[in-house]
Amino acid sequence: MRRVAIVGVGMSKFGEEWTRGYRDMLIEAGSRAVEDAKLSGAEIDCMYVGTMAPGSLVGQEHIGALVVDSMGLIPIPATRVEAACASGGVALRQGYMAIASGMHDCVVVGGVEKMTDTPGNEVASALGGAGDQEWELFMGATFPAIYALMARRHMLEYGTTEAQMASVAVKNHANSSKNKYAHFQNEITLETVLKSKEVASPLKLFDCAPITDGAAVAILMPYEQAKKHCEMPIEIIASAQASDTLALHSRESMTCIKATQIASKKAYAQAKVTPKDIDIVEVHDCFTIAEIMAIEDLGFFPKGKGGKASEDGKTALNSEISVNTSGGLKGCGHPVGATGVKQAVEVVWQLRGQGEKRQVKDANIGMTHNVGGSGATSVIHIMKRDG
Amino acid sequence: MRRVAIVGVGMSKFGEEWTRGYRDMLIEAGSRAVEDAKLSGAEIDCMYVGTMAPGSLVGQEHIGALVVDSMGLIPIPATRVEAACASGGVALRQGYMAIASGMHDCVVVGGVEKMTDTPGNEVASALGGAGDQEWELFMGATFPAIYALMARRHMLEYGTTEAQMASVAVKNHANSSKNKYAHFQNEITLETVLKSKEVASPLKLFDCAPITDGAAVAILMPYEQAKKHCEMPIEIIASAQASDTLALHSRESMTCIKATQIASKKAYAQAKVTPKDIDIVEVHDCFTIAEIMAIEDLGFFPKGKGGKASEDGKTALNSEISVNTSGGLKGCGHPVGATGVKQAVEVVWQLRGQGEKRQVKDANIGMTHNVGGSGATSVIHIMKRDG
Repeated sequence: MRRVAIVGVGMSKFGEEWTRGYRDMLIEAGSRAVEDAKLSGAEIDCMYVGTMAPGSLVGQEHIGALVVDSMGLIPIPATRVEAACASGGVALRQGYMAIASGMHDCVVVGGVEKMTDTPGNEVASALGGAGDQEWELFMGATFPAIYALMARRHMLEYGTTEAQMASVAVKNHANSSKNKYAHFQNEITLETVLKSKEVASPLKLFDCAPITDGAAVAILMPYEQAKKHCEMPIEIIASAQASDTLALHSRESMTCIKATQIASKKAYAQAKVTPKDIDIVEVHDCFTIAEIMAIEDLGFFPKGKGGKASEDGKTALNSEISVNTSGGLKGCGHPVGATGVKQAVEVVWQLRGQGEKRQVKDANIGMTHNVGGSGATSVIHIMKRDG
Repeated sequence: MRRVAIVGVGMSKFGEEWTRGYRDMLIEAGSRAVEDAKLSGAEIDCMYVGTMAPGSLVGQEHIGALVVDSMGLIPIPATRVEAACASGGVALRQGYMAIASGMHDCVVVGGVEKMTDTPGNEVASALGGAGDQEWELFMGATFPAIYALMARRHMLEYGTTEAQMASVAVKNHANSSKNKYAHFQNEITLETVLKSKEVASPLKLFDCAPITDGAAVAILMPYEQAKKHCEMPIEIIASAQASDTLALHSRESMTCIKATQIASKKAYAQAKVTPKDIDIVEVHDCFTIAEIMAIEDLGFFPKGKGGKASEDGKTALNSEISVNTSGGLKGCGHPVGATGVKQAVEVVWQLRGQGEKRQVKDANIGMTHNVGGSGATSVIHIMKRDG
């Protein structure tokens, strides 16, 4: 297997982009990535696109072809991959495999989702398709309800508090206020979160990631070629993915994401590192409780201690472990298919020292953690800078 | 890169399966493939599923997780891939890459689509998502209309006749009448096709592949391991994919599928064979005109001569080239995501000599040709039996 590196990244401004569609946002992100990688475009020989629900949201499938067409990259192979909100992470993994296998030498990996101004406004219902349609969504269990069940159970088992969950949102807005591509550019207070409208008790509006439009792109090459090509290639030193039951009610535990535990163990082994070696991590905080479970499942804090750690500031910029420096799904926004790729974009920026006002000192090893549904899919990547 | 072989195949009975969903059909096909490969199931370490529009059709995305869950294969990575009607072929290609790269040692590749009894009966609209939603479907150009345009142009440029197109359907029904898994088990006459109801002139009902439910599964292993494991592994000696514009109106020519020409050239080069070496081919006959264009684009007949060749019986069983021995999309049925994998299942059966009443004599090398939309994606695989 060949070693794989990221040589260029870019993203569109995340937000409510009422006048823009799949093509516009991906072209914006893609052009930036091509420019960043100093490519002409002719080197690109394969494309993957992660997107969750364009069929339900805008009536368009075949997004691989749509993107390769609108980017002027015909006739290279273009494939859409989907694993609900982990579609971006899974696309990155296919790109990694295409390079590692020796089948391709320059792969564009895009993630995108158009969620506002969709015909029918069926966003909640389309997102419900990430869980078990027959046994969850049809019975009324939308995603806030499913994560609310996990939050309640975490509170019961470990004494996690609503204020601890709220502290995650406060920290992520603090980070996103320093990120010009983020959906939310404003800081918030604990009071704002705690007093916000209830969505599914105990989760309130500010515990939930927003509905966002956006795209992100990463360009991959074999590491040896990348070293010749650019000043600071970022090597992907681990790519791991695991699955769990689609429905929450089929699981042994509601307070952990087992697929995350399994995938991260594999990733640590592949990269030959431990949680202590990770300087920055982008975790999948679709709800504040999800970030708390993630930092436990990934081994940064013991199970049940994630809420306290968040409250104590141990996940803030330049603390014990800098979590969601981009602002995460909560602050940066969550265009579902784009999220997994955006996480990689942020980690690359941080490892290169391009994190601007949110730059973490001495960031050498970074991780991305992308979850589909309530944890039926989890994808982990670990990246490292040279030297 | 490691060599890759198919060690087990299976499919569900294709047809209008009013009482069965994604889970049931994939479990049926998957169990048969696991039994065929003589595996316990514990060897399987990765899964890909090709499916086009479960979000629009039944409100369920995240089909990788749904399948791995219902097949009892948790926690292996499970990823859905989509390229409209080429979803199955693209899934096979990801499985090929996962083995070739050395990342996985036993990969299940499934294809599935549930098209009857879907909420809202939006099949035509969901299928339209394979083309350009904004510039084709929204203007009323459904797929029969798009292929009708190609047929008219082929008639104008090359003198192709309605009777020649009809002969494709007659031949494919003759083949499917010998296939117990096929949607249609009956032979038809030229008169039946020519007198059938007009769908989009010049295409009539019997020029069009039906709406079908079904699933197909192939299990892949590294060739060297496969040789020890089973009596007759079928090696995949080429895997190639190419793209073209999403919308038909953007293309230079309406009488060829350029993505097929490009992908097949690559595939022939990779496999080191020519069209003359291919004994059997499963082509993407979503409409009869599509089979005529395919046998030309793949190099079996000169451009413009495909209609005449079909009429003259040169594509029948044991003729010049045995085309669509399964019955093709027209006779065997077209559950869109399943089709690309079903093509591989049929080729494996033929190369092993398990083609029953439709067995082609001395079939040594076979090809599959799977198209997404009106040709924006084309995926080709070439397979070979040992000895």
